[in-house]
Amino acid sequence: MLTPSKKALVPFVSVENMMRLVNSNGLSSMLVRICDAIEEDFLRWDAFDKTPRVASHSDVGVIELMPTSDGNLYGFKYVNGHPKNTAEGLQTVTAFGLLADVQSGYPVLLSEMTLLTALRTAAMSALAAKHLAPKGATTMAMIGNGAQSEFQCRAFQAICGITRVRLFDIDPAATQKCATNLQNSGLHVTTCTTAEDAVTGAQIITTCTADKQNATVLTDNMVGAGVHINAIGGDCPGKTELHADILYRSDIFVEYPPQTRVEGEIQALDADHPVIELHDVFAGRTQGRKTGGAGDKQITLFDSVGFAIEDFSALRCIKDAIKGTDFFDALDMLADPDDPRDLYGMLNRAK
Amino acid sequence: MLTPSKKALVPFVSVENMMRLVNSNGLSSMLVRICDAIEEDFLRWDAFDKTPRVASHSDVGVIELMPTSDGNLYGFKYVNGHPKNTAEGLQTVTAFGLLADVQSGYPVLLSEMTLLTALRTAAMSALAAKHLAPKGATTMAMIGNGAQSEFQCRAFQAICGITRVRLFDIDPAATQKCATNLQNSGLHVTTCTTAEDAVTGAQIITTCTADKQNATVLTDNMVGAGVHINAIGGDCPGKTELHADILYRSDIFVEYPPQTRVEGEIQALDADHPVIELHDVFAGRTQGRKTGGAGDKQITLFDSVGFAIEDFSALRCIKDAIKGTDFFDALDMLADPDDPRDLYGMLNRAK
Repeated sequence: MLTPSKKALVPFVSVENMMRLVNSNGLSSMLVRICDAIEEDFLRWDAFDKTPRVASHSDVGVIELMPTSDGNLYGFKYVNGHPKNTAEGLQTVTAFGLLADVQSGYPVLLSEMTLLTALRTAAMSALAAKHLAPKGATTMAMIGNGAQSEFQCRAFQAICGITRVRLFDIDPAATQKCATNLQNSGLHVTTCTTAEDAVTGAQIITTCTADKQNATVLTDNMVGAGVHINAIGGDCPGKTELHADILYRSDIFVEYPPQTRVEGEIQALDADHPVIELHDVFAGRTQGRKTGGAGDKQITLFDSVGFAIEDFSALRCIKDAIKGTDFFDALDMLADPDDPRDLYGMLNRAK
Repeated sequence: MLTPSKKALVPFVSVENMMRLVNSNGLSSMLVRICDAIEEDFLRWDAFDKTPRVASHSDVGVIELMPTSDGNLYGFKYVNGHPKNTAEGLQTVTAFGLLADVQSGYPVLLSEMTLLTALRTAAMSALAAKHLAPKGATTMAMIGNGAQSEFQCRAFQAICGITRVRLFDIDPAATQKCATNLQNSGLHVTTCTTAEDAVTGAQIITTCTADKQNATVLTDNMVGAGVHINAIGGDCPGKTELHADILYRSDIFVEYPPQTRVEGEIQALDADHPVIELHDVFAGRTQGRKTGGAGDKQITLFDSVGFAIEDFSALRCIKDAIKGTDFFDALDMLADPDDPRDLYGMLNRAK
C-alpha cells in the first residue's frame, strides 16, 4: 500500500480535538482570540468576496453553504438548521468548515464547526457589544437558555466585562442547565421566571431562542432607554424575536445588509429602513454608541444572523492554534500521485 | 474523555480506502455501477434541485461548490481547477464530497472525490456515448492523455464495448504513460504522433486536454460523417477545444444548458443555439443517434462540463458500496451531546 504524500494530507480537527484545544487554551482565551480575528477581518472588509449563503430548503429545515475568500485563503462552512431535531435527541444546528489555499486550491484545514460556531457567534456578539453597549455595563439578560446561551454569557464576560447574568427560558429546565453550567464561571447568575424579570436592571439584553416562527420574545415596554439588544435567534425568513415597535426605536447594526434583510429581525421592516454596517463602526467610519446624553437614551440593536467572514475568522484562528499541537489528525483526503497526470497508475499500484 | 455517540460519526472514505474499494470491486464494475446510478438519477431529473455551481475565481484558478438535492439526500462537491498545479507537482483538480440526510441535516458520508470524479466523468461520457455513438463502434481516438484519459478508455470499454483506442497528446511522455497503464486492460492500444492519425478510423473521438485557453484540438476536416465526439476538456469560460465549424455540423448534447452555455464548447455559439438535454435522450423523449441512413451521416457531440447530479450519483454509489466493508473510517465531525441543548456541558465534561 502506498502512503499518501504530505500534500495529500489535510489537518482535521474533530469534535474531541476541538474540545481539547479549547479546554487547553481556556474558553475565555479562545473567545478573545476569535473576537480579535473577526475584528481584524471586518477591518479589511473590502478584501473579501461576499455572497449570501447558498441554501437548500426542505419542509423540516435548511442546509446551507457559506463560502468566502480574502484572496489568500478560501473558506466555507456547511451548516444545517433543523428545529425539530432537538425533540429527536439531535442538534438543531451542526456544522463543519474548510479552509483552502487560493493559490493551489488545496484544502489546508477541515474542522468540526458545531462547537466552533457557538464560539464565533458568541465572540461576534461580544465584539458588537464592545462597540455598542453602554459604557460600564455589568448586567446582561439572557433570554433563551439553549445550547448557545452559556457561550454568550462567557463571551460577554471575557470581552465586555459583564459580571452578572439574568437567565430566562420558557422551559425552566433549560434555565437550570444554564445556571448549573455557569456555576464556576465567576459570573453572578440569577434565574428568572419571566422575561420581564430577566431584563430588570440589565444594560444588555441577549435574545437567543430557537422556534422557527415570528415570536415576540421582547415587547416594546420591556426595553428601556440606553440598553443594547443582542438579537441572535432571528436568523432565517419567518423567524424573528422582537416586536417591530422595538426596531423603530433602535439604531440597527448588521453584519451584511443583503443577508440580514432576508434573514434578520429587519425582515419585518421596509427594504430601505436605515441600518448601520458593523465594519463601519469597527473602523471608526460611523458612530456606534453615541457619546454623552444622546447615548444614555439610545437603544442599539445588533440584528445578528451570522456571516461567512466570521466563520472564516474562526477557522483561521483554529489553523493557527493547532500549530505545534497534536489537536488534529492528518486526513488522507486528496489524491496526490507522484506524477500528477498518473492518477490511474496510482490506483493500479495500490492493488 | 467522552466517546462521541454514533450519530456524531460520519463515514469517511479516504483516498486509500477509495482505491481499496475500487480495486476490490474491479474498476470496470465500479464504472458500470456509477454509470447506472447516473442514468437512474437523470431519469428522475425533475426530483433534483438544480443550481449552477458556486465559483470563487482567482488569477490562477477556481474553487467551486456544486450542491444538489433530491429531497431525501443532499450532496455537494468541493472542487478546484488550477492548470498551473501540474508544473508544481500538484493535481490540477482535487475534490471531495459530502452527502447529508435532508430530514436531519446530518452528514452521512464524506469522501475523497479526486479519484471518484475521474470515475464519474468517465462513466458519464460512456453513458452519453451508449445513447449517441454509432452502433457497433469499436475504436476510440483519445486526444489528451492526462490523468483522465485511462479512465475514459476503460469506461468506454466497459460500457460501450470499445476494443481499440488510438492515443495522442502533444507531450509524447503522456501518451507513453497512458499506453503503459492500459497494457493489461484488454484494450488494443495504438500510440499516434498527430491528432489526425489518432482520429483515423475512429467512430468515437474523445478530447480531454487541460490548457485554460480557447484551443483547437480538433479542426473541421478531422471530423468525418457519423462519428460521436466526446468533448471533456472545455469546461470553464475561456476554455474550449473544438473549432466552431465542428459545432455547426453537430447535434449537440448537454447535461444542464444554463451551466454548459457558460462553461462548455457552446460558449462560442449564440445563446439560443439549439442543444439537446441528455436526460431527455435517456428517457426516450428525444432521439439521440438517428436511425438508418440519417444516423450514418450524423455527427453527435457531447459537450461535457460535469454536473452536480453526477457527483451526487457517484457519492450515492459509494455510500452503498461501503456497506458491510471496512473501506471507511468513522469521523468524529459532529458535536452530539447527550442533551442537544447542552453543548457547553459537553465541553466542560471533556476537561
